[in-house]
Amino acid sequence: MTTLQLNLPKLVRQQNPVVLTIANTVTPAKVADGLSAIGTSPIMSIAPQEASEMVALANAITINLGTINKEQVNEITTVLKENQNQKPVVLDPVAIGASQYRLTVAKGLLQSYQFTVIRGNAGEIAALANVNWSSHGIDGGSGQANLHEIAKNVAQAYNCIVVLTGKTDIVTDGNNEFINHLSTNYFTTNIGSGDMLSSIIAAYLSVSDTPYLAVCTATKFFTAAGVKAAREVTGFGQWQVKLMDELATLNSNEVLSVL
Amino acid sequence: MTTLQLNLPKLVRQQNPVVLTIANTVTPAKVADGLSAIGTSPIMSIAPQEASEMVALANAITINLGTINKEQVNEITTVLKENQNQKPVVLDPVAIGASQYRLTVAKGLLQSYQFTVIRGNAGEIAALANVNWSSHGIDGGSGQANLHEIAKNVAQAYNCIVVLTGKTDIVTDGNNEFINHLSTNYFTTNIGSGDMLSSIIAAYLSVSDTPYLAVCTATKFFTAAGVKAAREVTGFGQWQVKLMDELATLNSNEVLSVL
Amino acid sequence: MTTLQLNLPKLVRQQNPVVLTIANTVTPAKVADGLSAIGTSPIMSIAPQEASEMVALANAITINLGTINKEQVNEITTVLKENQNQKPVVLDPVAIGASQYRLTVAKGLLQSYQFTVIRGNAGEIAALANVNWSSHGIDGGSGQANLHEIAKNVAQAYNCIVVLTGKTDIVTDGNNEFINHLSTNYFTTNIGSGDMLSSIIAAYLSVSDTPYLAVCTATKFFTAAGVKAAREVTGFGQWQVKLMDELATLNSNEVLSVL
Repeated sequence: MTTLQLNLPKLVRQQNPVVLTIANTVTPAKVADGLSAIGTSPIMSIAPQEASEMVALANAITINLGTINKEQVNEITTVLKENQNQKPVVLDPVAIGASQYRLTVAKGLLQSYQFTVIRGNAGEIAALANVNWSSHGIDGGSGQANLHEIAKNVAQAYNCIVVLTGKTDIVTDGNNEFINHLSTNYFTTNIGSGDMLSSIIAAYLSVSDTPYLAVCTATKFFTAAGVKAAREVTGFGQWQVKLMDELATLNSNEVLSVL
Repeated sequence: MTTLQLNLPKLVRQQNPVVLTIANTVTPAKVADGLSAIGTSPIMSIAPQEASEMVALANAITINLGTINKEQVNEITTVLKENQNQKPVVLDPVAIGASQYRLTVAKGLLQSYQFTVIRGNAGEIAALANVNWSSHGIDGGSGQANLHEIAKNVAQAYNCIVVLTGKTDIVTDGNNEFINHLSTNYFTTNIGSGDMLSSIIAAYLSVSDTPYLAVCTATKFFTAAGVKAAREVTGFGQWQVKLMDELATLNSNEVLSVL
Repeated sequence: MTTLQLNLPKLVRQQNPVVLTIANTVTPAKVADGLSAIGTSPIMSIAPQEASEMVALANAITINLGTINKEQVNEITTVLKENQNQKPVVLDPVAIGASQYRLTVAKGLLQSYQFTVIRGNAGEIAALANVNWSSHGIDGGSGQANLHEIAKNVAQAYNCIVVLTGKTDIVTDGNNEFINHLSTNYFTTNIGSGDMLSSIIAAYLSVSDTPYLAVCTATKFFTAAGVKAAREVTGFGQWQVKLMDELATLNSNEVLSVL
């Protein structure tokens, strides 16, 4: 049985960690606002010239592959080299099931650098596991494989924690598994939900000494905020607004109330 | 008399087409959320290395010139070459009336590749028609020319459908003309309204065999969502939220109710 | 005693100035919507090829250093060269206290070009003053120095107006000082509040012959909109929406009502 670290939302607010996101070009404002709402100080950068200082400044790092090109891959590599495994790093391999270029980049990064967490949907994690899966752009897609096995295999292959998000979220370190049933379709409609979660996971990692529990807690809290928001609104746009409200006031009692 | 294809909103949701947008750097999140709200799977890319796969994956493509530079033009050209007229393509020539660079790029693209639709405001379409027009940055500007003639001439010159948006929207394939009077000033205040419509038009094209009717329908439905939203709110920020609500629940009955 | 120019919100709406923002990649949509809401025509560009036309078109310019790299610095330099001090220019030196690269770029720009205004938080302005300050990423950070002195010194060193924003905003031209106490924590949580203010200051500069008073007025009006919004909502997401509502209807009476 996984014991969530209910003090983490408070710790994030108290410690105000700096979370560096090497972001995609589509959802950086959502990610930055989400990070700021939960109490972190988000920063973003696209210049290799400042990678060293950005890594030194950061308490945790997220690498998002949502809109990579040659320059962005150079930026990512420079940041990871500077980091030398000092700060926790989350990889968000957006749509690698839909692009051989992205998949090759993702696998290359995973072979050269140690990541603390990989956060992706079924299609993305399946691609890392070399499992046949019908991906659908940035969406999870569909397939016959056992997602629990896939997540476990990827976690073991890359010695990291895997968060496979979907209607049910699977968190595994290769040995333990945590299942999160909190969900709302609004997360799927909202472009950038995954990007936000990946960076929020990084924030939680930076204030905890037990990465696996921190990742489970971050996943639970983020989805709880979304489910709570969904109960209070009647439309997609309203939900986007309410999600920010909830992230900014998130506390343990509120999370427990939606479980 | 133009008969709108009232089944298209439902078809988009059922078929969940992948819409590839080569986006500008200002409004990609709005475009992605709008596409997702109406039931498509949006994807964006800035890497020529994955252009081939992106085009194969996509059911329709939008080329947005809102913040082009040399690299972005290379990306656009690579995507269009890969497409070889297989998937419908919408061109959004943002502010080409205000920049000779953008105008030259737009005309070059139109001479080399076949577009299904050009969607722009008066200043942008007038620039393509070589008509004297006082453009005002990204705004429509003002002039004495007959917009109906301008739209028709551009449609005939480039053998495509032209959507000239403003207080009154003009849709023409060079022979037929469809006039849409649904409008609210919030569309003008909201940066990215045109970008959203261009990509939503691409979505509708991907689920219809009659491009002209699909374009008329997309224009009518998008503006109907905005007009319906405007009736229910008292401020610009609220309207942006409500527009997303409406796009996510848009159906034929609701559109008919605001006509 | 500083006399605010209460007619400026109306003048902005009447004259509809074009405001060119060389933006960062995180918050351009917020900046563009904020500018549009107050009645300007925002435009953004990343191509040196169109810098000349963009400058000619613009009534005021904002240079934002939030996510600079080599290409972006080239774009900025090209725009400033084209401008030759013709149009008012606001510099937003985002996080220069956290990155030597950014600080070097900022100082280089300030030495080569005349800026009308520098708008930054305590950490950013302190970095320009070579004052020891504990910056915290994009946040203001903390230190012992006298912020009034720092702002004054930077204004005198670069012969410009300095807006040092925080719980209390300090506006100074090196001789006069204007203090603005209007504030809400939502401004800090909202990523891009500073970016928005910098571009709105540019808009006000473009319709006034007295730069210092225009800057004081812009700062007062923007914060008044935020404070008024804060009184009407109960959450961060709602505040973001309400801020846009308020910016779109901002008038002198409303500002006076929150003083």
